[in-house]
Amino acid sequence: MAGSTFGNWFAVTNFGESHGPAIGCVIDGCPPGLALSEADIQGDLDRRRPGTSRHVTQRQEPDAVEILSGVYEGVTTGTPIALLIRNVDQRSKDYGNLLDTFRPGHADYPYWRKYGLRDPRGGGRSSARLTAPMVAAGAVAKKWLAEHHGIRVRGCMTALGATPIATDDWSQVRHNPFFAATAQGIDALEVQMDALRKSGDSVGAKLRVEASGLPPGWGAPLFDKLDAQIAYAMMGINAVKGVEIGDGFGVVAQTGSEHGDELHPEGFASNHSGGVLGGLSTGQDLVVHIAIKPTSSIRLEKASIDRAGQPTTVVTHGRHDPCVGIRATPIAEAMLALVLMDAALQHRAQCGDVHIDTPPVPGQR
Amino acid sequence: MAGSTFGNWFAVTNFGESHGPAIGCVIDGCPPGLALSEADIQGDLDRRRPGTSRHVTQRQEPDAVEILSGVYEGVTTGTPIALLIRNVDQRSKDYGNLLDTFRPGHADYPYWRKYGLRDPRGGGRSSARLTAPMVAAGAVAKKWLAEHHGIRVRGCMTALGATPIATDDWSQVRHNPFFAATAQGIDALEVQMDALRKSGDSVGAKLRVEASGLPPGWGAPLFDKLDAQIAYAMMGINAVKGVEIGDGFGVVAQTGSEHGDELHPEGFASNHSGGVLGGLSTGQDLVVHIAIKPTSSIRLEKASIDRAGQPTTVVTHGRHDPCVGIRATPIAEAMLALVLMDAALQHRAQCGDVHIDTPPVPGQR
Amino acid sequence: MAGSTFGNWFAVTNFGESHGPAIGCVIDGCPPGLALSEADIQGDLDRRRPGTSRHVTQRQEPDAVEILSGVYEGVTTGTPIALLIRNVDQRSKDYGNLLDTFRPGHADYPYWRKYGLRDPRGGGRSSARLTAPMVAAGAVAKKWLAEHHGIRVRGCMTALGATPIATDDWSQVRHNPFFAATAQGIDALEVQMDALRKSGDSVGAKLRVEASGLPPGWGAPLFDKLDAQIAYAMMGINAVKGVEIGDGFGVVAQTGSEHGDELHPEGFASNHSGGVLGGLSTGQDLVVHIAIKPTSSIRLEKASIDRAGQPTTVVTHGRHDPCVGIRATPIAEAMLALVLMDAALQHRAQCGDVHIDTPPVPGQR
Amino acid sequence: MAGSTFGNWFAVTNFGESHGPAIGCVIDGCPPGLALSEADIQGDLDRRRPGTSRHVTQRQEPDAVEILSGVYEGVTTGTPIALLIRNVDQRSKDYGNLLDTFRPGHADYPYWRKYGLRDPRGGGRSSARLTAPMVAAGAVAKKWLAEHHGIRVRGCMTALGATPIATDDWSQVRHNPFFAATAQGIDALEVQMDALRKSGDSVGAKLRVEASGLPPGWGAPLFDKLDAQIAYAMMGINAVKGVEIGDGFGVVAQTGSEHGDELHPEGFASNHSGGVLGGLSTGQDLVVHIAIKPTSSIRLEKASIDRAGQPTTVVTHGRHDPCVGIRATPIAEAMLALVLMDAALQHRAQCGDVHIDTPPVPGQR
Repeated sequence: MAGSTFGNWFAVTNFGESHGPAIGCVIDGCPPGLALSEADIQGDLDRRRPGTSRHVTQRQEPDAVEILSGVYEGVTTGTPIALLIRNVDQRSKDYGNLLDTFRPGHADYPYWRKYGLRDPRGGGRSSARLTAPMVAAGAVAKKWLAEHHGIRVRGCMTALGATPIATDDWSQVRHNPFFAATAQGIDALEVQMDALRKSGDSVGAKLRVEASGLPPGWGAPLFDKLDAQIAYAMMGINAVKGVEIGDGFGVVAQTGSEHGDELHPEGFASNHSGGVLGGLSTGQDLVVHIAIKPTSSIRLEKASIDRAGQPTTVVTHGRHDPCVGIRATPIAEAMLALVLMDAALQHRAQCGDVHIDTPPVPGQR
Repeated sequence: MAGSTFGNWFAVTNFGESHGPAIGCVIDGCPPGLALSEADIQGDLDRRRPGTSRHVTQRQEPDAVEILSGVYEGVTTGTPIALLIRNVDQRSKDYGNLLDTFRPGHADYPYWRKYGLRDPRGGGRSSARLTAPMVAAGAVAKKWLAEHHGIRVRGCMTALGATPIATDDWSQVRHNPFFAATAQGIDALEVQMDALRKSGDSVGAKLRVEASGLPPGWGAPLFDKLDAQIAYAMMGINAVKGVEIGDGFGVVAQTGSEHGDELHPEGFASNHSGGVLGGLSTGQDLVVHIAIKPTSSIRLEKASIDRAGQPTTVVTHGRHDPCVGIRATPIAEAMLALVLMDAALQHRAQCGDVHIDTPPVPGQR
Repeated sequence: MAGSTFGNWFAVTNFGESHGPAIGCVIDGCPPGLALSEADIQGDLDRRRPGTSRHVTQRQEPDAVEILSGVYEGVTTGTPIALLIRNVDQRSKDYGNLLDTFRPGHADYPYWRKYGLRDPRGGGRSSARLTAPMVAAGAVAKKWLAEHHGIRVRGCMTALGATPIATDDWSQVRHNPFFAATAQGIDALEVQMDALRKSGDSVGAKLRVEASGLPPGWGAPLFDKLDAQIAYAMMGINAVKGVEIGDGFGVVAQTGSEHGDELHPEGFASNHSGGVLGGLSTGQDLVVHIAIKPTSSIRLEKASIDRAGQPTTVVTHGRHDPCVGIRATPIAEAMLALVLMDAALQHRAQCGDVHIDTPPVPGQR
Repeated sequence: MAGSTFGNWFAVTNFGESHGPAIGCVIDGCPPGLALSEADIQGDLDRRRPGTSRHVTQRQEPDAVEILSGVYEGVTTGTPIALLIRNVDQRSKDYGNLLDTFRPGHADYPYWRKYGLRDPRGGGRSSARLTAPMVAAGAVAKKWLAEHHGIRVRGCMTALGATPIATDDWSQVRHNPFFAATAQGIDALEVQMDALRKSGDSVGAKLRVEASGLPPGWGAPLFDKLDAQIAYAMMGINAVKGVEIGDGFGVVAQTGSEHGDELHPEGFASNHSGGVLGGLSTGQDLVVHIAIKPTSSIRLEKASIDRAGQPTTVVTHGRHDPCVGIRATPIAEAMLALVLMDAALQHRAQCGDVHIDTPPVPGQR
């Protein structure tokens, strides 16, 4: 494929640029009979959209989604679902002066080298704004997965820069601007962000995203392993530089005797694997961590070159997230949901009639 | 696709089981005119194959590759290249007793839940033996990339369990059994491995793989970002639980002012990005790290269940690598080469006639 | 893929229903640097759109296309090109009574059996209206093919029902409502159509579509043969029941001595092959013929059943083409252009650097 | 994809050349649990293989298939099934002199223009010998379709050159060398073939292939319509120049009132559609006709050019089928089975849980 389609069976084709007329996607392969309306999608879009707190970009985008096809009388028909989001708040002047220079940490330089030209408005195609259509498509997948398999996907921030964040109360995620799964230390995070914003600099973040309720056996041996698909999906999110499944890099120093998760009739004794073995789901919780780099758009001057190859400096004004990781939680949830949706359909296609006498063991004892 | 094909333009379809008659792959889309013989492939296969030192499994497999098609008079014709490797040393009796139990840390359980049956011989399809055909295909990609673009792919081990390994002399990689890029501390690693083997346990490892000589602009904005493809390729390697590009999880605590790599007419000032921005290559070295879990096959007893769901215990005899990470270096190199080969053809298809007046800046100043 | 994407390298994902809010497509993989505006696309859309003569449906649809992405300052950027066409003239009431019955010759029955529900408005997804986005995408392909390779794609009607139509003057195609490549017998066709319309019945048609200026060597051995792709593209057009390449079914009674096109230094002596050998273009004109069935929507009563399986009768009122073949010429041209565009990129990817000392022979002497 | 893989869900990747060491394919996506052995495949291979009568090439190839993977203890495991067929009877000398000339009607010329080189031995990749792996894969599909859905695929020859062949007794197909579904006129066909062989010329043929027992609703609206997939599959068979579904080109002169197949509670009243409406199966018999050109390899001299572009003449000696259509019947059956297998899995993936209260009407009343 040419590169803009995610998934094989629940295939999402993404289009748009940050400051073009619109962004959106086409979902191909959605099963028929799913009750679906804009309201089912708007919720996750609102969690991701800008301007929701002082800690994120102040660009005002309602990110209102319009369903153009694939739904008749409130139910999916099995035909492609086209989702459209009009861009509203475009201040192209903010970026006019960047056409001839390459912002350090941004895609400006390689885009120019690949295509020989680029849309400089807000980063064009390389803008994180293009994750909005994926959040919309992910909302459709989340709904189907919940209704057909009782699967729940959720995520939270586990570190804001060098500050670790506890994961002791998932109910708190919606009650603070950081998607923190805790009531502890939120004030400190506010202070940290205010100081960061004042400094003109930016910072990285670490997120955790997980899914529970999976049946065992979803995925494929190679190469479309469930964990490989997840790594592909997560690394495809703007600014992500690292992906871990289960214990991730912690496995390097582990021994086999401590790592291998024992099975008991009443369930698995541990989940070092993060819910995937041999590329297939085990039925345990899927546990994924991702590392997000600091926003490249900062108000501090950096050295660069212009299109003629001459030295210059870049200072990025305009509106930006001091920590792109903050709004990344719903994005990571959506990408995980899209991977699972694809796996669900692949499994049904190949193994839809497999019968096993014994029930699976519980994901955890 | 059904899952066993890697790549879109240089598409490698893998087949085989650990103890079946043969393993292999079909490479579709290879450009014509590449001089190719078994000798060009055997070298990397020999680096990966078992039995080369006392620190790896003693299974004796020559892993001799046969080119079945796609090459005429020593040159690729542009038609599919089928590569065949016969399995020679199969001791199925080693595994006969495992058909009814699920080895902790292995794919036994989810395979059974997905397919309702499984080939228990040596793990069947889930065996790391299936990486051999990828190493073979990667050797073809490496040769084309070197000849057409001067690209070099290389890898080394950077940690054996909790023991960090220096990367101060790449010339040493071929002179020790650990693919260590240093002459320091090899004896200590030998001692560590001997003790581990005696204990019957296993340990994890960390690897670094990189590519140099890439032109800027290879990859795609989304979703087939070069780094997303790399993450997919690496996480698809058996036992890999984490992938990092550039600074990886180190970016979490970084600020934008320190992370963004500045450009100068004489080259980039640093390489925190690991050679990828916005999913496209920058022309800098591609730098990837992966975490490999400890071998799940150990001689120490672990609790598990049988197919009836009843409790049992598992002790794995037979021949195994105490650290699967040791032989993973040529595998990771091959997967990286396959990703780059695919990107090279994608770039030529879409942007083959793009002309840019100014030359790219050097990868590093 | 899930089925709504056409092409591998120049991938067009189609969406929409006849009476939904909008129809459109996303083109992924278009090379950068192509000058493109709505005006480049609207021309072919106008050739296909309804209401242009009394011989086609009177539904009033401007089919005005909006480019939503992939074009910056009038030039393609290499990112996905989203094309949107709003549906304007929807008279759903025309179709309300058809939800419970299955129109003979229409997709109503199998759609209901596949999805368990369907959008009855104007045939929903099965409407020929969904060819409009393909015509739009084809216009982009036509422009690139003409600018980069001097390729010209054209088509005409060669039979209206039992009435054969000469192909003696291509310049006439635009001067009559039948896309006839002749000035002869147009009046008779008008009379034939007026009588047909009055009768409430419909009729089939035969079209010829061809491309000239192709270089030799485009396509692939198997299975993506150029002729196989063309057959796939043409049979994918609504109402098409037969496809011929070159002499088509005429080859059955031919001998090898008469069929094989001889080569001479000054060119091929004949073109029985229709410009394809072994799945690859020969450099001669590509010649394709297609058979289009009579419109299934007629005002004459036919027997059918309802969703309960009970007998009923169907008479289709509303607005329909008495011969869907009339508007199919620009559609067939577009599909052929899309196949060639895909082949052009595939060829550049795999064989972009192949050099051959001698020039190809002319397509025809 | 790079072009050598057929199918999306039941994906068959083909490899090999006529005179290379071996030909074969890898089937990816086959459901687990299908009892499978070489014996299940060899039958159809024997129907296709050369040397079975004096009317086909005398090349002696046992076409013995070896299953290399994907089957354990006689049952498919759900992992890729690799099928290997060694080439035995290679007389490369037969072809040595053809490297510098281009045989009229053969792929020699466009292959050379595409790749800059070619394997001249027996046509290399363009040989009809490469249909053998498809026949093998088709046999697997046929078995699954029969066991899971009671689907039967069959084919016969309906014309040998200008001589029409009746289809009045399917049981006769296996009792004559022409795959004729009749006991009438076989002697005349023998005489016709003997005279043709003596003349050194060749002739075309027409085949009919059909499938019965399909449920309604298999396929996809666009572009992966069932009939479009069939057209792609059939036109992908060597020497095929035309494909018809149902009444095919006969629809041109039909009216809607006669073409549209009426439905009755006891079944469809006719089958002009050939079992497909809107790209989906209706539940009626799938009926396909294909036109096969005369063999291009004849003993009569034809004009051509050499690689330097200079005039020359070509006379093809060696062993050839005077009518390639004779052995094409099992090939066409296999390709149809592969299309249906893919459609079966696509349907199960997307609509596996669709429930419809009323049973489908019978395919035919």
